[in-house]
Amino acid sequence: MAARLLIIGGAERHGASGTAILRRFVELAGGPAANIVVIATASGEPAILEAEYAGLFTRLGARQARGLRIATRTQANEPDVIRALAAATGVFFTGGDQTRITAVLGGTLTDSALQTLVRDGTVVLGGTSAGAAMMSGTMILGGVAPGITRDGVRTGPGLEFLPGVVIDMHFAERGRLNRLLSAVALYPHELGLGIDEDTAILAQGDRFEVLGSGTVTVVDAGAATDIRVPASGPIALAGARLHVLPAGSRFELSSRRPSIVDRAA
Amino acid sequence: MAARLLIIGGAERHGASGTAILRRFVELAGGPAANIVVIATASGEPAILEAEYAGLFTRLGARQARGLRIATRTQANEPDVIRALAAATGVFFTGGDQTRITAVLGGTLTDSALQTLVRDGTVVLGGTSAGAAMMSGTMILGGVAPGITRDGVRTGPGLEFLPGVVIDMHFAERGRLNRLLSAVALYPHELGLGIDEDTAILAQGDRFEVLGSGTVTVVDAGAATDIRVPASGPIALAGARLHVLPAGSRFELSSRRPSIVDRAA
Repeated sequence: MAARLLIIGGAERHGASGTAILRRFVELAGGPAANIVVIATASGEPAILEAEYAGLFTRLGARQARGLRIATRTQANEPDVIRALAAATGVFFTGGDQTRITAVLGGTLTDSALQTLVRDGTVVLGGTSAGAAMMSGTMILGGVAPGITRDGVRTGPGLEFLPGVVIDMHFAERGRLNRLLSAVALYPHELGLGIDEDTAILAQGDRFEVLGSGTVTVVDAGAATDIRVPASGPIALAGARLHVLPAGSRFELSSRRPSIVDRAA
Repeated sequence: MAARLLIIGGAERHGASGTAILRRFVELAGGPAANIVVIATASGEPAILEAEYAGLFTRLGARQARGLRIATRTQANEPDVIRALAAATGVFFTGGDQTRITAVLGGTLTDSALQTLVRDGTVVLGGTSAGAAMMSGTMILGGVAPGITRDGVRTGPGLEFLPGVVIDMHFAERGRLNRLLSAVALYPHELGLGIDEDTAILAQGDRFEVLGSGTVTVVDAGAATDIRVPASGPIALAGARLHVLPAGSRFELSSRRPSIVDRAA
């Protein structure tokens, strides 16, 4: 079974789709057989998010859901934590600050265990906002400049569950095209995925499918014929390709090609 | 001489480029021979903007610059107003509400006179923010939904000094990609131009050049292979083309092709 990643753009608990995305996560994790672990390492208030998501997943039909507190690298190397992950059918990362996830988990036994469990398809991995950003090969850390510049975005390696992409969240709601464009202009190997709130991609192998009420904006600078990144001042980018994908659309990562499904049909 | 249009994304009086864009306008209007008319019809406080821009243009080297108050359609048909326009070498529209410009000027003698004076190259036409939006064939009136939807943008005809384009202003600063994408997905004949603050395009005939400290984002849905606009819910758009053009870049409107100039060279 291929790796299954449910990567959510944030605000999925209160979105127009209700809790359809989280319900899908429970189904992927086995529905009535699901044993879901909630990791709120990104958050400064993990207890609140652990309780809220565990309650939600149980109401949505999971057999069992509970928080797994990993606040330090020591905890991330504890045998009890690894045992809890090994027993899970779904692991869900909440929002917060994505650099806390990579700083606390990066290279630990938790990291290694998750990589194996996800790759083998034993565990479906879900994450929202920061918990989604950390799944990408290249992770957006921040970006303040409104324009498209070298300094308009700061990036660092994510935990690479989905390599070859750079993911940005709350995409339409926070008007983040420019920092995603800055990232892909700097690193055109990476495919830029901007995921709206209450919207997700379900990645399985080489493909992903879009879920939820918003869209996923794909920025493909690999198609660009000319990219110039000056030391200061705005970036130039000619011929990038852009796709706007609502629910039901699919995308093949290796060929960088979308296929849109007509929901009216 | 072809029509010359200087279309500014707003905030050009206090931008990183100083007043370079407005200085360029004065030069295009004849420099020491320039006779510039400032029209603040878009604004609720025209006297303040008339005085400020007239003062600026004079300090930037114009022989003469003054406000021309056109607050009603009656005024827009007065012979004195037409005489003032006929004597001008440059006409500048301030920001405010673009629908005030089209409502007050549309179809009046002022409208006709400007079309002729601009087409003949007698007058260079400048405008910022609302004064820029009204120059396009299709004008964005507003848009509140963050997503890319049929309701995500409201459009109406502009005064069509530059047909075939839809212009959005304060583009990076206000994160307006989605409403521009909504507009071009609905009307792929129109080329989408998103102009940042303190940034402008100088359109002459079939080409434009980018000026200022930001970038112009060109969204070309004409290249799209698949566009679906449902009655409700998000638009799907596959294969649109996107260019990010900093100062010095040029663009050919008929072929929809950019050429980026290396400013380091």
